[in-house]
Amino acid sequence: MSFFQDIKAVKRADPAVRYGLEVLFFYPGMWAIWFYRFCHFLWKIHLKFISRLIMTIIRWLTGVEIHPGAMIGKRFVIDHGMGVVIGETAIIGDDCMMYHGVTLGGRGHSKEGRRHPKLGDNVVIGAGASILGPVTICKGAKIGAGAVVLNDVFEDETYVGQKARSVITK
Amino acid sequence: MSFFQDIKAVKRADPAVRYGLEVLFFYPGMWAIWFYRFCHFLWKIHLKFISRLIMTIIRWLTGVEIHPGAMIGKRFVIDHGMGVVIGETAIIGDDCMMYHGVTLGGRGHSKEGRRHPKLGDNVVIGAGASILGPVTICKGAKIGAGAVVLNDVFEDETYVGQKARSVITK
Amino acid sequence: MSFFQDIKAVKRADPAVRYGLEVLFFYPGMWAIWFYRFCHFLWKIHLKFISRLIMTIIRWLTGVEIHPGAMIGKRFVIDHGMGVVIGETAIIGDDCMMYHGVTLGGRGHSKEGRRHPKLGDNVVIGAGASILGPVTICKGAKIGAGAVVLNDVFEDETYVGQKARSVITK
Repeated sequence: MSFFQDIKAVKRADPAVRYGLEVLFFYPGMWAIWFYRFCHFLWKIHLKFISRLIMTIIRWLTGVEIHPGAMIGKRFVIDHGMGVVIGETAIIGDDCMMYHGVTLGGRGHSKEGRRHPKLGDNVVIGAGASILGPVTICKGAKIGAGAVVLNDVFEDETYVGQKARSVITK
Repeated sequence: MSFFQDIKAVKRADPAVRYGLEVLFFYPGMWAIWFYRFCHFLWKIHLKFISRLIMTIIRWLTGVEIHPGAMIGKRFVIDHGMGVVIGETAIIGDDCMMYHGVTLGGRGHSKEGRRHPKLGDNVVIGAGASILGPVTICKGAKIGAGAVVLNDVFEDETYVGQKARSVITK
Repeated sequence: MSFFQDIKAVKRADPAVRYGLEVLFFYPGMWAIWFYRFCHFLWKIHLKFISRLIMTIIRWLTGVEIHPGAMIGKRFVIDHGMGVVIGETAIIGDDCMMYHGVTLGGRGHSKEGRRHPKLGDNVVIGAGASILGPVTICKGAKIGAGAVVLNDVFEDETYVGQKARSVITK
């Protein structure tokens, strides 16, 4: 079942997990995903208002904001999760993982078509990274912490932002 | 009335909004602004403790931290909002917009004068950007996601951080 | 006592504080630290489940996520705090300070040894900075807002990310 697969996926991803029950209690990112799956179902049967309402409460409980219209694959893991924002037309493949502070957001104000990123399978996104606009991040790609990605990323590519550098202290 | 203007401003800014009632229920950033307006009034009549107390509760409910002493113009929109911090001496013009994770913060420990940024009208600030110190962001300027701004920005200028780049995967 | 030292440390660090009682009521980052100190004690006497459970509730109340296994020195100050993540094997010296959105996180999935950063005394970390992996940030170092640090930082060094720059507006 999807639920047990999710717990296994977290255990594989986070060395701080000791046993599966911990995932149930200490992973607000996973709570958000489980409620998202229910609300995405509500969204699809056109109970849009109630689905957004539940996800707004879940945002308050978990710090994770997933629009119920987003499409998310199996065994998705969000670690820590505070500040994650996943937009309405975002698409996420199977076995993806992201850390806290990640944005899958839009650019511009057009209401037409896809406005948010599409992630292939096995994509990993580091803490605080922003992926903006209807770009495609192909399968196996890795995005480093704090990176701002505004373009497509090829299969198995790694994208990183600028590393910090030493400056003279005044 | 200011309240209805705010809702119209959100509808203009966010393509995911379908009707005005959604703004009332699904936009924690707007809740924070409405409570800020009340608390700023309390702050001005020297009910400082109670105004900060209310804004601390609002931070817990919305993830948005606005100091009640900040000065904010009309039709200000905060989208998503988690992690926004607006400091005590920040000034924000009319029709500004910001996304989640934006900081209008201070540098250094002086208690004298303005410590936080001043934004003109129609300024837009992307997710996760930090504007630090008593700088001025002139009207119509745009600040990209994740940008760190430590200097003044001219009228209608666009400031961006470093885009992520591809690196060889090990 | 540690508690009063903490309040003094905040008063020294934040110009917006007017008197000590404000720290008690308006500094969720400090609430998180105080509960962390209690939960770290529980963690050490092997009440690991209950210590993580309390810190998960504290994360919900404060937006600050500190693993109870982390080791944190005296007079540690977290200002604002929303989105802070401090990992299980992180070590923080005395008189350190960090702002909101800071990550002391891991890289890779090894369960062996230290996975998170070690901070010396008097280290200051700006808003939204990410320090990842088992690196050492020596005493007196300063890390700028939004910086991504993946290597050791020497004593009294200052590390910063890329400042935003002006681009032609379309």
